[in-house]
Amino acid sequence: MTRLIDTLKMRSLISQIPSAHDKLLFTPGPLTTSLAVKQAMLHDAGSWHFEFNSRVSAIRERLLALTGVSHDRGWETVLLQGSGTYGVEAVFLTCVPPQGKVLVLSNGAYGERIVKMLQHARIDHTVLRTPEDTPTDPNALDAQLRDDPAITHVAMVHCETTTGILNPLSEVGAVTRHHQRSLVLDAMSSFGAYPVDLEATGVDYLISSANKCLEGVPGFAFVICQRQKLEACAGFARSLSLDLLGQLKGFDANEQFRFTPPTHSLLAFEQALRELELEGGFPARLARYQQNHRILVEGMRAMGFRPFLDPAVQSCVITAFLYRHFPGFDFLTLYRRLSDSGFIIYPGKLTQTDTFRIGSIGRLFPADMRALLHAIDQATLEWRHTTTAAPTP
Amino acid sequence: MTRLIDTLKMRSLISQIPSAHDKLLFTPGPLTTSLAVKQAMLHDAGSWHFEFNSRVSAIRERLLALTGVSHDRGWETVLLQGSGTYGVEAVFLTCVPPQGKVLVLSNGAYGERIVKMLQHARIDHTVLRTPEDTPTDPNALDAQLRDDPAITHVAMVHCETTTGILNPLSEVGAVTRHHQRSLVLDAMSSFGAYPVDLEATGVDYLISSANKCLEGVPGFAFVICQRQKLEACAGFARSLSLDLLGQLKGFDANEQFRFTPPTHSLLAFEQALRELELEGGFPARLARYQQNHRILVEGMRAMGFRPFLDPAVQSCVITAFLYRHFPGFDFLTLYRRLSDSGFIIYPGKLTQTDTFRIGSIGRLFPADMRALLHAIDQATLEWRHTTTAAPTP
Repeated sequence: MTRLIDTLKMRSLISQIPSAHDKLLFTPGPLTTSLAVKQAMLHDAGSWHFEFNSRVSAIRERLLALTGVSHDRGWETVLLQGSGTYGVEAVFLTCVPPQGKVLVLSNGAYGERIVKMLQHARIDHTVLRTPEDTPTDPNALDAQLRDDPAITHVAMVHCETTTGILNPLSEVGAVTRHHQRSLVLDAMSSFGAYPVDLEATGVDYLISSANKCLEGVPGFAFVICQRQKLEACAGFARSLSLDLLGQLKGFDANEQFRFTPPTHSLLAFEQALRELELEGGFPARLARYQQNHRILVEGMRAMGFRPFLDPAVQSCVITAFLYRHFPGFDFLTLYRRLSDSGFIIYPGKLTQTDTFRIGSIGRLFPADMRALLHAIDQATLEWRHTTTAAPTP
Repeated sequence: MTRLIDTLKMRSLISQIPSAHDKLLFTPGPLTTSLAVKQAMLHDAGSWHFEFNSRVSAIRERLLALTGVSHDRGWETVLLQGSGTYGVEAVFLTCVPPQGKVLVLSNGAYGERIVKMLQHARIDHTVLRTPEDTPTDPNALDAQLRDDPAITHVAMVHCETTTGILNPLSEVGAVTRHHQRSLVLDAMSSFGAYPVDLEATGVDYLISSANKCLEGVPGFAFVICQRQKLEACAGFARSLSLDLLGQLKGFDANEQFRFTPPTHSLLAFEQALRELELEGGFPARLARYQQNHRILVEGMRAMGFRPFLDPAVQSCVITAFLYRHFPGFDFLTLYRRLSDSGFIIYPGKLTQTDTFRIGSIGRLFPADMRALLHAIDQATLEWRHTTTAAPTP
């Protein structure tokens, strides 16, 4: 009894000692960001003020440049308040004509989320599903587009965060372009790491958000698209707040958001873009994430954990690990142990298989991955000792 | 030439000296917030993490308590990512049945914004307008509700930020309840200062946002409503992102936002609520804003500026001032001069009359109002000297 009380006292004492930094987030976002990104939020900016507006305009320009497209060739960035999902939904609510039909390529929760959006908006749609461990099939897409002339838009999730699978953008882009349909790309968790050549692949609308691989804080999404295409959607918008064309016209008129913008998130994002540049742009960031991912997978394999996906289709953004080989394994127990050690991981989202997920993105470096692996090693001893390590292929 | 270069050098030098604080925002929001509110954003939180989720739940509870309503009596707070406008639109997109019809009481830009929302969503509606200087007329509302049984919802802006006019909530609430219609209250810029007795006035949906009188930073809106009423709207939602019932069910399921929340804004808001409590709650905050407003109007009158509204209907949130008595007056010149002195004011939004606006809300105190008045005095000398001061009633 005395021992229990001592332990409790000790625990309550420990919990009051603040850590030198926040718990590290090995998640698909919101992510661990740099201190400088957060410090950029220590200012209040007026959303009607010309100084602030010129910074917003610069952010829009910078996103185009990062994507390798330009105003001169008709491209625009439209920033939109809210989470990334709002940005994806805004594209459909604004750009699909009343008689339009969307073909959704789905192999995970984010593809299914697009289906739900279309259901809510009563937009005609059809779904081409592949299993969660299988990339979208361009041949099946080709057949479906041939057979169904009513389809006006194809929607795909670039990196499906459910598993971390990377879908075949070039092939899907070529097929969609061949059939002269519009391509909507949810690039939420890929943009900033994996390059997307909009013009070569024929993406009409790319959507991502501030708090993924660009390492800003949450608050807004953005859509990169052709002005002419968007302007052709006049009158379609089914929502005022999510009217992407209305938002572009607002920026055109006075460089301003139509409605209150998340000023602090925008200041943070400005700093995040600066840090991306200092790091060496998309290639350097991808290289860091790939290294993080490699260290993670090697370490996890050494402990007997197997990734859900075949390495050939696995992105470096987030990795789903199976735990069926460990009898008694309890995700919430692992989660809490790691949390107590200062590491936040993520639950699985698969429909058929039990997994948990670990992200490699955000302000995380190889040393952080190794520290996490050490903590996982300690936290999973009991299950790993009671079982034979899973065979690694 | 040498003098010009010297001046330029001096200017560039001055512009590099950081001010002790940011320019003060005398606007309707985003506002000047406390340093502690901004410092609360120096942390990254995991949006799936139980510690963060319990803080979100506490925020939802705290908002109910501030409003003087309780869970026990069926009330809920639904937080929603995005600007305040998203919160207002979410109510209509979620809660108006397919055959529903909304009567909008409008006397300014925010009433007209509700009309635009309903147009976008193809929701049947009618508008009862009063002039911009005239509060909504409860008798006209009574007549219209008697004559049009198709109307299911009445929508009103509590404090219309276009002018700062305060609309008669008690009377409108009584009439709406008498006719057994639902009342939607856009309390964006009043909530946190002016008390709203939801049960006595019969408000079904109250919408406000983090960055108004509660003095948080932008990032999310919130809706306070009866769970039972909201649950009766199942199946109506026209948008996934703006599905208020879906959002409530998400909180029910696991205390989480369905989609990435603005974690930093939420941490800031937690601190903002703490500061509201320290200040003495809504009554103390209203008293400070009223004092700010009184100082402002007295000082402006002394310089010859007249408020657009009759004091009897003027709120203390924001004040529109006429400038027709000053020939040659140029708002942008005044705006830039005040900006150079560290003060940000706001343009007018009236359709018929030229005004500019000055807010009294946010982390502003009487000394700040006096400093602003001094700067306005200096910045408007040239126009005031060329004219006779306007007669003050």
